Amino acid sequence: MTRKILVIGAGKSTSYLIDYLLTKAQSEKLHLIIGDLHPELLPDTFTSHPACQTLKLDIFNDQDRKEAIATADIVVSMVPAHLHIILAKDCLALGKHLVTASYVSDELKALDKAVTEKGLVFMNEIGLDPGIDHMSAMQVLDSIREKGGKVLLFESFTGGLVAPESDNNLWNYKFTWNPRNVVVAGQGGTAKFLQEGSYKYIPYHKLFRRTEFLNVEGYGKFEAYANRDSLKYREVYGLNNALTLFRGTIRKIGFSKAWNIFVQLGMTDDSYTIENSKGMSYRNFVNLFLPYSPTDSVELKLRHYLKIDQDDIMWEKLMELDLFDGNKKITLANASPAQILQEILENSWTLKEEDKDMIVMYHKFGYELNGKKEQIDAHMVVTGKDRIYTAMAKTVGLPVAIATLLILNGKISTPGVQIPLKPAVYQPILEELKSHGIIFKEQHAPYLGYNPDFVAS
Amino acid sequence: MTRKILVIGAGKSTSYLIDYLLTKAQSEKLHLIIGDLHPELLPDTFTSHPACQTLKLDIFNDQDRKEAIATADIVVSMVPAHLHIILAKDCLALGKHLVTASYVSDELKALDKAVTEKGLVFMNEIGLDPGIDHMSAMQVLDSIREKGGKVLLFESFTGGLVAPESDNNLWNYKFTWNPRNVVVAGQGGTAKFLQEGSYKYIPYHKLFRRTEFLNVEGYGKFEAYANRDSLKYREVYGLNNALTLFRGTIRKIGFSKAWNIFVQLGMTDDSYTIENSKGMSYRNFVNLFLPYSPTDSVELKLRHYLKIDQDDIMWEKLMELDLFDGNKKITLANASPAQILQEILENSWTLKEEDKDMIVMYHKFGYELNGKKEQIDAHMVVTGKDRIYTAMAKTVGLPVAIATLLILNGKISTPGVQIPLKPAVYQPILEELKSHGIIFKEQHAPYLGYNPDFVAS
Repeated sequence: MTRKILVIGAGKSTSYLIDYLLTKAQSEKLHLIIGDLHPELLPDTFTSHPACQTLKLDIFNDQDRKEAIATADIVVSMVPAHLHIILAKDCLALGKHLVTASYVSDELKALDKAVTEKGLVFMNEIGLDPGIDHMSAMQVLDSIREKGGKVLLFESFTGGLVAPESDNNLWNYKFTWNPRNVVVAGQGGTAKFLQEGSYKYIPYHKLFRRTEFLNVEGYGKFEAYANRDSLKYREVYGLNNALTLFRGTIRKIGFSKAWNIFVQLGMTDDSYTIENSKGMSYRNFVNLFLPYSPTDSVELKLRHYLKIDQDDIMWEKLMELDLFDGNKKITLANASPAQILQEILENSWTLKEEDKDMIVMYHKFGYELNGKKEQIDAHMVVTGKDRIYTAMAKTVGLPVAIATLLILNGKISTPGVQIPLKPAVYQPILEELKSHGIIFKEQHAPYLGYNPDFVAS
Repeated sequence: MTRKILVIGAGKSTSYLIDYLLTKAQSEKLHLIIGDLHPELLPDTFTSHPACQTLKLDIFNDQDRKEAIATADIVVSMVPAHLHIILAKDCLALGKHLVTASYVSDELKALDKAVTEKGLVFMNEIGLDPGIDHMSAMQVLDSIREKGGKVLLFESFTGGLVAPESDNNLWNYKFTWNPRNVVVAGQGGTAKFLQEGSYKYIPYHKLFRRTEFLNVEGYGKFEAYANRDSLKYREVYGLNNALTLFRGTIRKIGFSKAWNIFVQLGMTDDSYTIENSKGMSYRNFVNLFLPYSPTDSVELKLRHYLKIDQDDIMWEKLMELDLFDGNKKITLANASPAQILQEILENSWTLKEEDKDMIVMYHKFGYELNGKKEQIDAHMVVTGKDRIYTAMAKTVGLPVAIATLLILNGKISTPGVQIPLKPAVYQPILEELKSHGIIFKEQHAPYLGYNPDFVAS
């Protein structure tokens, strides 16, 4: 009997997801329905497949949405995170499993009891980050604890970057995912983490000046700035006794220091709009954030304000973006500084058709076993094929697709609103990801920590 | 016939307010009722006066509150700003005039029609800032416009400071008003103003590094950082065509640069709490905001992080607060960084009994008249007597008291929810304030502006 999978929202991240399911369609007897507001934009490779059907679907149309969900055996929601709840309520009412790659919202969490009672699986945070990070971390953490080890340190870093072969700008960065998330990254609250038992707090305006360095074998040196939520998974990862907990976002060395210019100027602010933004030159946009002067140039005012030396490479990075161009114009009306900055960056940082992206994930696990302190470093690097078949789409889409099939086949059957922390969930998924080249390399390293001799600070 | 004035909330600001009304009690046939949660704390000078009665009043007790208001002819609300609305609704229902020194909230504004229909006067923003700032600015603006002048520039600065004779710490600052407002000053949104027709935006983390200087005759040099709301009164002041609009807060030179250390560290953040704050040493509090090190001192980490030179006076300012003391302990549990910083500062910056405070207000008016550009500077300095009879209490309380009596006597009779922008309101009040030593000195100055030669920027 054919099983029907309804995938709602076919954005950037769905190429690998759909390919995986279509490849398995015959052997697994799958029928795929892609519901999207613009199904006409879907590639031929999907639409021409015999097991694939497309559906023009506006999820705000209650009747259409419910009808679509009613016909499916499982729903994969790839819509923006805050919209999952609409689909989740229908899935609950109509008795359908649900898979999303997003963080579990409080609203969704609140459905847990009802979902469990109906025996449904609502699997979330099963993309890359969150997703592969949970699974790969839990696998190592569980194995350390099984041996009797006591985890002292857990650090986890992820970055969506541009692959070395396509890395041809001074920022060593291009947008490989939602640009807006990059522009406002780090906002909305102080970053909080633990180092050797001490709480540490970094306000947004210092976030990009407090980076840590990472060496990734074969790929060189990277930096990482702290995520807001390093303590978010302390409880569920079983790390209540760990002394160091840190989660960060990976960039190539030097990115954060230059990005900090935008932060310091106030260009990443999304809390107010600039009425006369449309038609404003890039140069005048920069000048909004600088003191008035009847004579001094925008360039010199900026150099002086942020103390940027004449020969600082950061300056070339700004020039590369045409930031001081008096002729290039902003097209957005009534836009926030963050929206305008995004427009400027998209002019420079958009992937070209043949550009390849790259995902880097790096975990450090420090632990004590038999009175000895040890460390395991585990890292994964995945490179994309092109602008459509990105490493991002692969690492987000494949775990979603694999989980969907496992749920459909009853291999994942624990009911409730959940994230992939249990061996029964992460083992088969991580195992299958390996065959797609998503592989963690583990290395034993001397335990470094931050306080090898327990000198007080 | 005796008129009854109900003053609700007898905090720091009410000494002059009550004295004024009691002094006029006999000649004006006034009876004063002070309603407060703790009337037993009121000074004898009030309570022993034959025309003064105290009342234990919890404004959240509906019956008591309505009864108290019903007996009065006019109500003066000195409760925290967000509570005025409770009293305002009763005043409207019971047909009583109302006076407050606070900003008009949207909720209060919404009562305007009903208040007007009943012929009631709800006078707000009639303290110092807002209050005297409105009145003194409108007086000069109206006189310029009467002569046919066109206003090009309006800048307005106010500061609650310590008087020179009591100025004995390195910050040249003590708390003369609500300390919390000082600690969180500038938060909640980007500062926005106009300079020579250009919008300018300053994010919070740069606010204290973009100060302007002011010279006040006889008092030397001051600095001012931008208020959030420089454009707030553009419309009501009739300044839609002005090229420069700036409102700022005055401090003694060097304060802002040192205060910026707290901002940069993240110590003024009020958006999260530190669970283990109670009993934490000042030193460990500072260390929360610094990178972990097993060996380096908190002092060196801070110097390095914020690039503070060895011989920078800012350092002595921090030392004066005992910021690196490992023995001094925070007493607040579960407090936000801002609350903890306030506790630390209150240990050093609280007025002593004999300490005198000082209010400085400074306006600049640039205008064009008969083809010539001119400028008027107007400033006011008021010094307090001691910790109770502060310049702050005087400049907030006296305009409130004078307005109250003018309303009671029908001299101010325009109905509605209003602020003191009309000559009929500000003229008699400013005139009477003069007799209490609250006097503006006007000076004609050459028009400076920011762009004397109209060179482009």
